[in-house]
Amino acid sequence: MREILDLRSDTVTQQPQEMRDAMYKTEVGDDILRDDPTVIELENKAAELFGKEAGLLCTSGTMGNQVSVMTFTERGQEIIVGEGTHILNLEVNALSTLSQVYARTIPVENGYFDPKIIEENISTGDIQRAKTGLICLENTYNLNRGFLVTPKNIAEVREVADKYNLPIYMDGARIFNAAMALDIELKELAKDVDALMFCLSKGLSAPIGSVVVGSADFIKRARRFRQRIGGGMRQAGFIAAAGLYGLEEMLPQINKDNENANFLAKKLRKIDKVEVYPKVIATNIVVMDIEETGMDSELFLEKLEKKNIKVKHVAPTQFRLIAHYGIEKEDLKYVVDSIQEVIE
Amino acid sequence: MREILDLRSDTVTQQPQEMRDAMYKTEVGDDILRDDPTVIELENKAAELFGKEAGLLCTSGTMGNQVSVMTFTERGQEIIVGEGTHILNLEVNALSTLSQVYARTIPVENGYFDPKIIEENISTGDIQRAKTGLICLENTYNLNRGFLVTPKNIAEVREVADKYNLPIYMDGARIFNAAMALDIELKELAKDVDALMFCLSKGLSAPIGSVVVGSADFIKRARRFRQRIGGGMRQAGFIAAAGLYGLEEMLPQINKDNENANFLAKKLRKIDKVEVYPKVIATNIVVMDIEETGMDSELFLEKLEKKNIKVKHVAPTQFRLIAHYGIEKEDLKYVVDSIQEVIE
Amino acid sequence: MREILDLRSDTVTQQPQEMRDAMYKTEVGDDILRDDPTVIELENKAAELFGKEAGLLCTSGTMGNQVSVMTFTERGQEIIVGEGTHILNLEVNALSTLSQVYARTIPVENGYFDPKIIEENISTGDIQRAKTGLICLENTYNLNRGFLVTPKNIAEVREVADKYNLPIYMDGARIFNAAMALDIELKELAKDVDALMFCLSKGLSAPIGSVVVGSADFIKRARRFRQRIGGGMRQAGFIAAAGLYGLEEMLPQINKDNENANFLAKKLRKIDKVEVYPKVIATNIVVMDIEETGMDSELFLEKLEKKNIKVKHVAPTQFRLIAHYGIEKEDLKYVVDSIQEVIE
Amino acid sequence: MREILDLRSDTVTQQPQEMRDAMYKTEVGDDILRDDPTVIELENKAAELFGKEAGLLCTSGTMGNQVSVMTFTERGQEIIVGEGTHILNLEVNALSTLSQVYARTIPVENGYFDPKIIEENISTGDIQRAKTGLICLENTYNLNRGFLVTPKNIAEVREVADKYNLPIYMDGARIFNAAMALDIELKELAKDVDALMFCLSKGLSAPIGSVVVGSADFIKRARRFRQRIGGGMRQAGFIAAAGLYGLEEMLPQINKDNENANFLAKKLRKIDKVEVYPKVIATNIVVMDIEETGMDSELFLEKLEKKNIKVKHVAPTQFRLIAHYGIEKEDLKYVVDSIQEVIE
Repeated sequence: MREILDLRSDTVTQQPQEMRDAMYKTEVGDDILRDDPTVIELENKAAELFGKEAGLLCTSGTMGNQVSVMTFTERGQEIIVGEGTHILNLEVNALSTLSQVYARTIPVENGYFDPKIIEENISTGDIQRAKTGLICLENTYNLNRGFLVTPKNIAEVREVADKYNLPIYMDGARIFNAAMALDIELKELAKDVDALMFCLSKGLSAPIGSVVVGSADFIKRARRFRQRIGGGMRQAGFIAAAGLYGLEEMLPQINKDNENANFLAKKLRKIDKVEVYPKVIATNIVVMDIEETGMDSELFLEKLEKKNIKVKHVAPTQFRLIAHYGIEKEDLKYVVDSIQEVIE
Repeated sequence: MREILDLRSDTVTQQPQEMRDAMYKTEVGDDILRDDPTVIELENKAAELFGKEAGLLCTSGTMGNQVSVMTFTERGQEIIVGEGTHILNLEVNALSTLSQVYARTIPVENGYFDPKIIEENISTGDIQRAKTGLICLENTYNLNRGFLVTPKNIAEVREVADKYNLPIYMDGARIFNAAMALDIELKELAKDVDALMFCLSKGLSAPIGSVVVGSADFIKRARRFRQRIGGGMRQAGFIAAAGLYGLEEMLPQINKDNENANFLAKKLRKIDKVEVYPKVIATNIVVMDIEETGMDSELFLEKLEKKNIKVKHVAPTQFRLIAHYGIEKEDLKYVVDSIQEVIE
Repeated sequence: MREILDLRSDTVTQQPQEMRDAMYKTEVGDDILRDDPTVIELENKAAELFGKEAGLLCTSGTMGNQVSVMTFTERGQEIIVGEGTHILNLEVNALSTLSQVYARTIPVENGYFDPKIIEENISTGDIQRAKTGLICLENTYNLNRGFLVTPKNIAEVREVADKYNLPIYMDGARIFNAAMALDIELKELAKDVDALMFCLSKGLSAPIGSVVVGSADFIKRARRFRQRIGGGMRQAGFIAAAGLYGLEEMLPQINKDNENANFLAKKLRKIDKVEVYPKVIATNIVVMDIEETGMDSELFLEKLEKKNIKVKHVAPTQFRLIAHYGIEKEDLKYVVDSIQEVIE
Repeated sequence: MREILDLRSDTVTQQPQEMRDAMYKTEVGDDILRDDPTVIELENKAAELFGKEAGLLCTSGTMGNQVSVMTFTERGQEIIVGEGTHILNLEVNALSTLSQVYARTIPVENGYFDPKIIEENISTGDIQRAKTGLICLENTYNLNRGFLVTPKNIAEVREVADKYNLPIYMDGARIFNAAMALDIELKELAKDVDALMFCLSKGLSAPIGSVVVGSADFIKRARRFRQRIGGGMRQAGFIAAAGLYGLEEMLPQINKDNENANFLAKKLRKIDKVEVYPKVIATNIVVMDIEETGMDSELFLEKLEKKNIKVKHVAPTQFRLIAHYGIEKEDLKYVVDSIQEVIE
């Protein structure tokens, strides 16, 4: 029988055998004492790839995001974020509790962070109003859309940030998907932000972890904040080994994921009464809407599950499908056929 | 020479002589030990007026607001607020620092808190999303507009709140202006909220203070949070005496303020190229926009100051004028004439 | 019949008639807009008296303390405090909630802040330990003892602070009692601390308020933190007028309070089986212990109340008596006689 | 040449080959979606071992500790901790920043949590004092001593806790060392606490992780707090597999560690002028003091390093040596001989 095709997220990816091998053979040490050579290698490699001075391994994207905000801000400041960002909506309100900052939201149409809107939302502070302390980008933007944030847009935001002497942080959980789609180097995407985080456990197919990269001083301070929230680990080399393998071997896969999502979207669009978002599939995220079909969402999920297909229910009549390692074009054909069947 | 006409806010109001007299003669004690009879009288009277069990004197509206949020919420929750509210925008980000909550904003058109929009923004919480813990209203809504929030609207919000078992708090800094404009009893306006705060130092013309009213248990817990942020006072009866005088004698004045603002708006609308907001002046707040006149805003302010008139600059070409005790219809005529002159 | 003699605290003091007069006649304005001349006069006078650049009126000692800590520290730091201090034990854990700092306690024998012990408790921070950000003194030390902290001791602490580049804050709620007892100028007592707070509503007999003094930059930042916790007030000149009167006219009274407490202690020591703390009464605080008498504490309180005397129950068999304006030597004789009677 | 003997901590332990094998072969899934069978197996096994309803895998002991405090407390409460505990001193002040609680410290002589002292430090709260919300134990107590906390002592603390309706949390980072030394079941040690955390990455020799166990409801809420601080992981089964192996196979090793530490201490005590703490070595921690030898501490460390021995410098003249997997009796003989040589 067919194995389960799990398209809910790229976080469900099973590790390639060679990645397991790399983990199995790796050298480890106590990383809180900075004695783990594999962690150090990963952090250095990550920094180099993104053109930054230093890196910090975290256990999750949430941790990387929150440690960065804690490091950049003072209690009571405002930060600017896109209204659909993970850092605000899907991190259990860590911003208020760990950093005591307020996230002022801006609309981000199709992944475009409008510098004018950002500027309007910057506060220089007065007796009654808190001061803005940080601008947060997310690339790809919005976990249900996967929009590209372009280097040109980032440069525009940099200009505004410089005007107000503000740092820029980028949640780059899926930045490899963005870089591949834009066909540019990671350094190019990173050059106008002060720090960014990327995930090992999404497209790169590692089991656990994310890495924050930034200036040496920033990372030094971030390391203590990571410790505060329990992110200091001992023989973390096992995790790092998988991450290193991912950085070295999995980038072509990410390109393939972007293409597969595009392929999937095109096929889904041919199904009658099914809407597909976003209009242009640039990366690995596809959302389909069955509203027009009149089909019950629970039933839809159930029937797909019977066909060994899992998708993520993200809105009353909408479902997310993410391409990732282990999902081949043929699998996607089966998925589309199954969806067609189920709807009919 | 003419005295300065200060229309920037109703917070600048000078106290009536009789209010000073009341303060002068009042009996006081140590209120942290609950020995101040005048404070107790004020708190009881406030509770009674709004149909609640108990009251708590605070030193400011900001304090009343923040103490209430601390009392209603747990760290890390979300609360729902209108996007233009004082509690979010003009309290130096106390929400994040004192209560560690996130203020999810909703648009509030013309003072209408749309129950559907509120419901869409309520989170019941899941593994990645914080839970909503409180709905905040503001009446009158928006310190640059003074919109009325009607009892009918509040009842609608109550229905949603009950569905999710959520408390409702109302920032009623200018609730007397609302009640007068709506021509209903304070109790009526308060009956569908769990607690509210009103200011003594705005339309009521007292020098200092606000009062929170709510259930006896709520106020008991709020009293400790007030102490935490330094709001416990000793011989606070001096402040309370002014507040009591305000509650007993100044309500007719508030009606007059509403009328005066309306009068002012009508006159201002006649000036060529001057826009006046909001369209319907229900309470004591008027905003005028000189954009069309092409006049420089700094110059406008300067010239008015020379005529002993102060207004508040609230947007590039907009100015707020608030009616309050001490500002008579004749004064307003002089103001309008002066503005006309200055613009020409 | 005799009026109630309330010795529980100097916070219960009724205002002198002349102080009421000063409040009655004072000129006021909106202090959040910095338009209250009396507040500005008080803040300037306070700064001058203590040899600092600027002052900030707060509604309470708790507020002055907490605003200062918020201004001096970053979230997550440690601060050093005496184990019996008000700032830690009697401010509803504001340190953790408003400033997110940890108060590392040191023993303070007879008001001596041992610089060696302070140094041992300073943390320069490492990957697992937070960094110390502030040293807090309290003068007079301990609200149940009233110990003097000498300028020599403060200079010693300054030396340690400088070695680690740390600011010093002093809770000087009863600093006038200390200065009088030490017979030195306020400036002298303040010169080695970066900022301090003193209360208007204790020995100075004002109804409400405290003032923080420090550098102009410190006070500017503190003013915003005061606003955040609701301490910004409108016509606060009424409070300031009382404070000004206190600073100008009540210092001799404070000297008298110190003497009266000493007189009271001497008399109480003569009562059989009654212990009196501290051994040397330097300021206005006396604690008596009735343990040896075998008398029930509740009964003791009750019988004194019947004689119109109030004292504060501060430990199972201990009671605090504080000298203040309105309590004359003759009253104290009556108090001592009454206690003797009650115990027998 | 001899391999490095690293006695600084049991956190530096290299994983046994069989543990690597277990990790290599394990089945994994996305644990945030609760799809990782190995994590679920570990959490269930941990709960069962300690007689609790449920378990939660965390990335570190710090995370387990802080998530537990966040779950048990409300912002602004006090908690009671031993003055030498990890949770207070070595977690970068997470208590104040994540939970906004104050840690009131008590002395803990030789691992005895005196119920009388605990009771004296419990606050039931009043207008100025925060309420106690949690009692924290640590077993073994103090990372530089390794004292046993006995079930009898825990039962005494339970009695006090029940009197005030307070939960008890136990930091059991090295609880296996305690259980082995006391020769009792884990359940027995856990029965009087509401929740506890134990480390996988210390004596059990796993690379990463700790597990919190408690009631099903507690763990459910803790899971969200873990997510907030970034502890939610994807294919965490790799970590869990190592932990499971540890729980199943490494307990005998822990017994051996306790014995080895005892052996080491006895030998060290025979070296002239060397002091050894604690007097009775119950678990795997030994501290030696070279003060009497007059030897320079830096030189001591340096010379030992040349002999491929690492110890932890924990006080000016004190060094910690911890027994763990990979350190055999023969190694310890070499260590003692080397220390003797170095000192002479």
